[in-house]
Amino acid sequence: MSRTLKVPGIAYGGDYNPEQWPEEVWAEDVRLMREAGVNMVSVNIFAWALLEPSEGTYDFSRLDRILALLHENGIAADLATPTAAPPAWFFRAHPEALPVDKDGRTLSYGSRQTFCPSSPAYREAALRIARVLGERYADHPAVVMWHVHNEYGCHNGECYCDTSAAAFRVWLRKKYGDDLAALNDAWGTTFWSQWYYDWDEIIPPRATGAVPNPTHQLDWRRFCSDELLSLLKAEREVLLEAAPDTPATTNFMVMYNFDKLDYWRWAPELDVVSNDHYLQSTDPESEIDIALSGDLVRSLAGGAPWLLMEHSTGAVNWQPVNRAKTAGELRRNALAHVARGADGIAYFQWRAAKAGAEQWHSAMLPHAGTDSQIWRDVVALGADLGSLAEVRGSRGVAEVAVVWDWNAWWALELPSQPSAEVRFQGLIRTWYEPLWRSGVAVDFVRPDADLSAYKLVLAPSLYLVDEAGKANLTDFASGGGVLAVGFHSGAVDENCHIRLGGYPGAFREALGVRTDELFPLLPGDAVELSDGGTATLWSERVALAGAEAVTSYTSGPLTGTPAVTRHTYGSGTTWYVATLPDPTTLASLLSRIREEAGVEPVRTTPEGVEAVLRRGPDADYLFLINHGEEDADVEVAPRAVELLTGEKIEDGVPARVAAGGVAVVREPR
Amino acid sequence: MSRTLKVPGIAYGGDYNPEQWPEEVWAEDVRLMREAGVNMVSVNIFAWALLEPSEGTYDFSRLDRILALLHENGIAADLATPTAAPPAWFFRAHPEALPVDKDGRTLSYGSRQTFCPSSPAYREAALRIARVLGERYADHPAVVMWHVHNEYGCHNGECYCDTSAAAFRVWLRKKYGDDLAALNDAWGTTFWSQWYYDWDEIIPPRATGAVPNPTHQLDWRRFCSDELLSLLKAEREVLLEAAPDTPATTNFMVMYNFDKLDYWRWAPELDVVSNDHYLQSTDPESEIDIALSGDLVRSLAGGAPWLLMEHSTGAVNWQPVNRAKTAGELRRNALAHVARGADGIAYFQWRAAKAGAEQWHSAMLPHAGTDSQIWRDVVALGADLGSLAEVRGSRGVAEVAVVWDWNAWWALELPSQPSAEVRFQGLIRTWYEPLWRSGVAVDFVRPDADLSAYKLVLAPSLYLVDEAGKANLTDFASGGGVLAVGFHSGAVDENCHIRLGGYPGAFREALGVRTDELFPLLPGDAVELSDGGTATLWSERVALAGAEAVTSYTSGPLTGTPAVTRHTYGSGTTWYVATLPDPTTLASLLSRIREEAGVEPVRTTPEGVEAVLRRGPDADYLFLINHGEEDADVEVAPRAVELLTGEKIEDGVPARVAAGGVAVVREPR
Amino acid sequence: MSRTLKVPGIAYGGDYNPEQWPEEVWAEDVRLMREAGVNMVSVNIFAWALLEPSEGTYDFSRLDRILALLHENGIAADLATPTAAPPAWFFRAHPEALPVDKDGRTLSYGSRQTFCPSSPAYREAALRIARVLGERYADHPAVVMWHVHNEYGCHNGECYCDTSAAAFRVWLRKKYGDDLAALNDAWGTTFWSQWYYDWDEIIPPRATGAVPNPTHQLDWRRFCSDELLSLLKAEREVLLEAAPDTPATTNFMVMYNFDKLDYWRWAPELDVVSNDHYLQSTDPESEIDIALSGDLVRSLAGGAPWLLMEHSTGAVNWQPVNRAKTAGELRRNALAHVARGADGIAYFQWRAAKAGAEQWHSAMLPHAGTDSQIWRDVVALGADLGSLAEVRGSRGVAEVAVVWDWNAWWALELPSQPSAEVRFQGLIRTWYEPLWRSGVAVDFVRPDADLSAYKLVLAPSLYLVDEAGKANLTDFASGGGVLAVGFHSGAVDENCHIRLGGYPGAFREALGVRTDELFPLLPGDAVELSDGGTATLWSERVALAGAEAVTSYTSGPLTGTPAVTRHTYGSGTTWYVATLPDPTTLASLLSRIREEAGVEPVRTTPEGVEAVLRRGPDADYLFLINHGEEDADVEVAPRAVELLTGEKIEDGVPARVAAGGVAVVREPR
Repeated sequence: MSRTLKVPGIAYGGDYNPEQWPEEVWAEDVRLMREAGVNMVSVNIFAWALLEPSEGTYDFSRLDRILALLHENGIAADLATPTAAPPAWFFRAHPEALPVDKDGRTLSYGSRQTFCPSSPAYREAALRIARVLGERYADHPAVVMWHVHNEYGCHNGECYCDTSAAAFRVWLRKKYGDDLAALNDAWGTTFWSQWYYDWDEIIPPRATGAVPNPTHQLDWRRFCSDELLSLLKAEREVLLEAAPDTPATTNFMVMYNFDKLDYWRWAPELDVVSNDHYLQSTDPESEIDIALSGDLVRSLAGGAPWLLMEHSTGAVNWQPVNRAKTAGELRRNALAHVARGADGIAYFQWRAAKAGAEQWHSAMLPHAGTDSQIWRDVVALGADLGSLAEVRGSRGVAEVAVVWDWNAWWALELPSQPSAEVRFQGLIRTWYEPLWRSGVAVDFVRPDADLSAYKLVLAPSLYLVDEAGKANLTDFASGGGVLAVGFHSGAVDENCHIRLGGYPGAFREALGVRTDELFPLLPGDAVELSDGGTATLWSERVALAGAEAVTSYTSGPLTGTPAVTRHTYGSGTTWYVATLPDPTTLASLLSRIREEAGVEPVRTTPEGVEAVLRRGPDADYLFLINHGEEDADVEVAPRAVELLTGEKIEDGVPARVAAGGVAVVREPR
Repeated sequence: MSRTLKVPGIAYGGDYNPEQWPEEVWAEDVRLMREAGVNMVSVNIFAWALLEPSEGTYDFSRLDRILALLHENGIAADLATPTAAPPAWFFRAHPEALPVDKDGRTLSYGSRQTFCPSSPAYREAALRIARVLGERYADHPAVVMWHVHNEYGCHNGECYCDTSAAAFRVWLRKKYGDDLAALNDAWGTTFWSQWYYDWDEIIPPRATGAVPNPTHQLDWRRFCSDELLSLLKAEREVLLEAAPDTPATTNFMVMYNFDKLDYWRWAPELDVVSNDHYLQSTDPESEIDIALSGDLVRSLAGGAPWLLMEHSTGAVNWQPVNRAKTAGELRRNALAHVARGADGIAYFQWRAAKAGAEQWHSAMLPHAGTDSQIWRDVVALGADLGSLAEVRGSRGVAEVAVVWDWNAWWALELPSQPSAEVRFQGLIRTWYEPLWRSGVAVDFVRPDADLSAYKLVLAPSLYLVDEAGKANLTDFASGGGVLAVGFHSGAVDENCHIRLGGYPGAFREALGVRTDELFPLLPGDAVELSDGGTATLWSERVALAGAEAVTSYTSGPLTGTPAVTRHTYGSGTTWYVATLPDPTTLASLLSRIREEAGVEPVRTTPEGVEAVLRRGPDADYLFLINHGEEDADVEVAPRAVELLTGEKIEDGVPARVAAGGVAVVREPR
Repeated sequence: MSRTLKVPGIAYGGDYNPEQWPEEVWAEDVRLMREAGVNMVSVNIFAWALLEPSEGTYDFSRLDRILALLHENGIAADLATPTAAPPAWFFRAHPEALPVDKDGRTLSYGSRQTFCPSSPAYREAALRIARVLGERYADHPAVVMWHVHNEYGCHNGECYCDTSAAAFRVWLRKKYGDDLAALNDAWGTTFWSQWYYDWDEIIPPRATGAVPNPTHQLDWRRFCSDELLSLLKAEREVLLEAAPDTPATTNFMVMYNFDKLDYWRWAPELDVVSNDHYLQSTDPESEIDIALSGDLVRSLAGGAPWLLMEHSTGAVNWQPVNRAKTAGELRRNALAHVARGADGIAYFQWRAAKAGAEQWHSAMLPHAGTDSQIWRDVVALGADLGSLAEVRGSRGVAEVAVVWDWNAWWALELPSQPSAEVRFQGLIRTWYEPLWRSGVAVDFVRPDADLSAYKLVLAPSLYLVDEAGKANLTDFASGGGVLAVGFHSGAVDENCHIRLGGYPGAFREALGVRTDELFPLLPGDAVELSDGGTATLWSERVALAGAEAVTSYTSGPLTGTPAVTRHTYGSGTTWYVATLPDPTTLASLLSRIREEAGVEPVRTTPEGVEAVLRRGPDADYLFLINHGEEDADVEVAPRAVELLTGEKIEDGVPARVAAGGVAVVREPR
């Protein structure tokens, strides 16, 4: 799409909810925004109740004043449709629009995002307010982007009510071409007497006595993602009609705790991809989740720009214990997102709330006001981002692709697997970590993506893969690439049917191995490896069928059996990592694989210094983020300039990155 | 109120449920009661089904016989309205009176206290039986007190049904003077599009997709307490009409596991305050919970007498593993309650049940009968209490007040706080423990209480405080008192709105500090303090604004920042304890604060010997409870007499308290 | 009953679900069955939806072909009524037949066994398909047994709907002879005002505010077991009418995780008793659970034959982590069942599923096909079983009886016990383990069983015992037997009423002890014993009343109190084990008791070698199962033959059992 975001340089701002404050506060808000270098804020996200006091009556006066004030002060507005939180009057009129959970429990209104995604009443009300809003502000000079809804699926990713059941059937009839036998085959309903003779017999996978059918559950997950997507598309269409040139975004939640939506299907619908990212207080290395999520969002966006739409300046409020950030962490976090390709940094939220459920969530302007470390950091960050304007639009470059697929994730974590301890995100991160530590650039890809740009493809966990994905990945290898596959991959097809004849089904031939039985390890159990390492979580009885054993078990019931194998396949090489090696062993292994593939790190750096590259039309931008406690030196190209300070770096002299600090070095090409 | 309890000396007895036994057992009951010195029993608590076999038909013959038998044997009756457990026929006729939980689940009858507090049918039925009972037994010579209901809110503290929703709205309209805008302001409903345009849109904080509005939740808690209180008052009124001179009580549950009722609002409605207290099997120092609860109940009662209405002679039956008492513990527990001001000791229950859900709950007369240690202890305790008759009516004396507020408790433990690990009761006990170990007498007070009698006021946890409470506490300090405040106090006002400008909001000025950011500590994390101690749970970035740093952090992200501060404020002194020091460090700190305030312990005793004083008109009663394993000597005043043995203590000779034993020393003034 | 199973030798096979596969696979199935020596398979278990596409219309063509194919290949069919999984159309027509859980949540169809056991619609539909099936295949030459339903109560052991409530009332009226006062007495409804004045007031023990009445709960458990039993009997009767000579079975679930059915009441209704047994992945000694379960099933069967109907060849799929079997474990598991009396070994299932909720459950023919260790083991096992044909019908012989009672189990684990840590199965296994390690043969018995064949009776946990059971057990002792009783036994009568006067109620006199108070131990707590051991979980204050103390506590509050006692009672001896000694101490104690009772092990074996005997008409069959890692030698009788190899054992030479191996030695008598 060609609609561009008309904000200069790197966008900087946050969610701005002035309706929660007396109007006398607003003037201070914009004054301080200017002080901090804020150039775009997201408004109107939760304003539905105020905009539409009763069905079909509107009061836009407050929003008019807000937008005018922003415009007067040179601050752009990312204007949200307020459809994530319908007013109380809506639910009183339409109680059937409340969502129902798996156990048949109807949730009540009183928080947010508590509506049934399939509710016709909700859809009608949401499109109505979106249309009125779109038409009113289509040409408003402050409005540079539509922020459609907010965090789709955050609290209502699945609704099991009868309306949803009917919508599920519509979705299934479309998917299966109105052929019920095809559905019965795909779901394997000869099992447990589950054959359907009428579409109307099909219901969501509600709580039932035993385990529901896995394909039923998987199609349900797909439907739930698509059902919310249909709402995005409907709102988008309404807005596009009103304002054909204004770009639209919605904020994804690519982070450690959200799995409801198949964002590969969502991203193409957006002009600008946005992401909300929060740190997990118990994660001692949150910077890795930032990098991983950033790489994934950049990959989802493809060529489109992407923004960090929500992040926190300090602690959040929804974890059991909410950790504050340490000195310099706010800056490192923000610039790490820019390093991974973000062209904007925004926070939830501008001003810390004094009331409501998020009153203990940090903000750009904290409860303590401007005499606070956070505010000082926010102002400094504004200056930093200002000095990075030229970075906008530059792109990441990677030779390594990591396969990421929501279908594989969902299928892997269905009940009644060999091991409930095997988790998709955990495995991806386990493989990602050593790459991150080595400074190796990574893209994420769909199984069926164009892989021609890559030397090495990693599939740490790809339980489910369809024929196209299988062919794409194995063709990549046979065509000369290096492919490394993690255990329990290729096990099932797109219908969750097991690929028979031996594991790892789809990849057996390409990997040159054949497993006849799986040996998941109990929590706490470990086995020893012939290279001196240990392994946990998983093992299996691999027989070589062309491959060579790189490492074998030296303890446990599979002593002597290969744990890691390597195989020449066509013009390329394939690796099978049939267990979970300890971190050091896995790092060595991935280094070896990477080196064989001819993949180099972005830059060699001292331990703790993250190096990321964005490539512009005539210069590279080297981001150096020092997570360690000592200053570090990194070699840079001639004629380099450190952008945050504006200082030139003398040729032959390394760039210095202070402990806990960041440097962004422009290297002319 | 002036209605007095006409039982001589210290009341002694228990719940007596003769309807659960054949009448031939009753004669043995009263014989053994006399043997044990029992002088009052609570009857009729769960007898509704037998008294009223169908709506409006009554059979009082059994109760007549029970009361006659008690009277003949000189045992007074604390006669209960049986309204805590409506009969099955009631629920069959009024299924809408069953309570509904937060998830919309309707509970069934079949246990007890499973009714909706707002049910009109329940209220009508309860008042009907209370009236009939009150009128019948108003002048019965055995009846010395009304025991209204039983443990209000024990199992039905909250009901979320539509009837309750309507009652909630009535309560809200009253509170907010029919001004819906005032409610919207108080709740901050501009947040998340929660604005209400009609009172009928308001519902209880039922299960919803995300976190409900905190003020909504807090008002709900207040309503739930008040709704049950309205039932107490209604029954009380009916009984008062029938018997204007008979005192009334209801049994509170001031102990470690109950938080439903704001007893500050309840206690003034009673002639006699009663409490039920049970030990937690996993608490290795239950004696501290007894002392704390006793102090709190005494404080609630104000000048009124209070009784221990339920306690156990041995193990209870509702904890995962129910610990028996060790040798002497029954006696120490009972006399510790007397020490804290109780004028009566009663147990659940007289005779151990052979059937029903409490069959494994200990009793005064155990399953094993009179040839049992418990029975021997019960008889001995009767003699002990008999020798303490003169203690009745004497009062505790304290120079230290600890602020206790249910609103602050409820608000602190709402979801989405900085740390879910911060718990009100735990913090109070943490501060109370070193005082208890030092023998320092303590009262509990409301934030807006008259503090003129105290030298030192402690607010270990006062997250919410209104303007009146804030002014009262800070005026106490500026007027010359010593005030010590724990972290995360004063954070919000009575509407749960954050007090802006820096923490700890309400107390910032009085404490001479200003915090710009909170740093809760993760479970397992600790930081070091400059005084050699360690701290856990919480830290914050305190800046001095007049105060001096007493202790600072020497590790962690806040190294160098004050952890404990001291400030001269007006004519007084204020302390801010901005973290949770380890027990030894906290004990030292509180000793220092106490000494500066000029507060002395009741008596200096060897470790493990609890000393408590009750002050009579012309003598003090010094209770010495030896929790240790060695005999101990304690200095006493001249002309002292040990009441349990009746022996005079020679002047200059200390009182000896045997290991595990108790002494009660009368010290003439 | 005299209907016999017409399969030669030891039955061998598994669940066969050909309807889940294309017909072209079937030919391979029967070819491989023959290769493996399979002689009987269970068919049709989950075929209802295919057999009856709509109510009253049938399609038996597929089943006809399956049975014909089996018969052609000499494989017998255990033909199931498919009533465990009604089709979707049934629930669409009869939504009221869906079960409701304790919380009022209606479960949905979509898995299996999700129907209300009391539903008239279900009963009608189930008996209709059973009748049609029975009549069609009554004389089919392949059909050798009816497999009624599948795993009764596996997922729907309890339904709390209104239909179930009505059925419960019918059951209660029958039990209490229409005498409501008798029910009120039995349940003790004077407690908590629970008196019932009308049968219609009685409902299931649904979720309620506090703890439900224990007798109410216990009668509910009895009703739920009986209600499912009535379904078994009804289907059985229908089949018997159609095929009077065909034996019937249903598959029990005697294993570590199922407690819904009182199989003592079920077993007499069957011609052949069957059991499903699965290993628990986290149990490091699953072989003990196999032995215990096998002994219990053999005991349930009484004289009737019994089969292992379901077991797994490798990992299951429904535990958190599903462990594969180690080398030789499949064979040891199977032959251990035969050792305990099984006359057949069958697996779930023949061919591993590629779709559906059990796709990751192992099978005889794994996903990998015949080139797999499991398949090789399955073929080898077929040969083993073939060589054991003569063992069929031989019987176990034991001199020790262990009392097992579902009523005691259910009652013990009701809420509000002295300790929720005390679990029936755990205690039984704790006592069973040392017997198993010593090679002592054990039967399980009802409390009122004929005990004349035994020298020693153990009651590790018999919380509830009625008068008949009490008399039977104590008479056994006074008549010269040795009786050992575990703590908290005899506590309540059949109505859950406590037996007053001191614990352990029913056995106080026979054991010569009297306990006045229970002292359960907290998790993590241990006390020391005078014999050098330690004890956990439980203690009580035992006073000797004729018995002698064998061991006493030497630490804790009960120091000096007896922990284990011994008493001469009539002509016999009784032991009371009033705590849970550590395993070594318990083993010593049970050895001493056993030796005093004159009970010998089956055979003395090296550690790790399990020895079990089956007695045939003129020979004994000694099963030797080596769980250890070293070859072992065991002395055998003269003229012995090892059946698995067919080799004679030279007189005087011991039988050798390889590490991990099995030997079955025929010893002529």
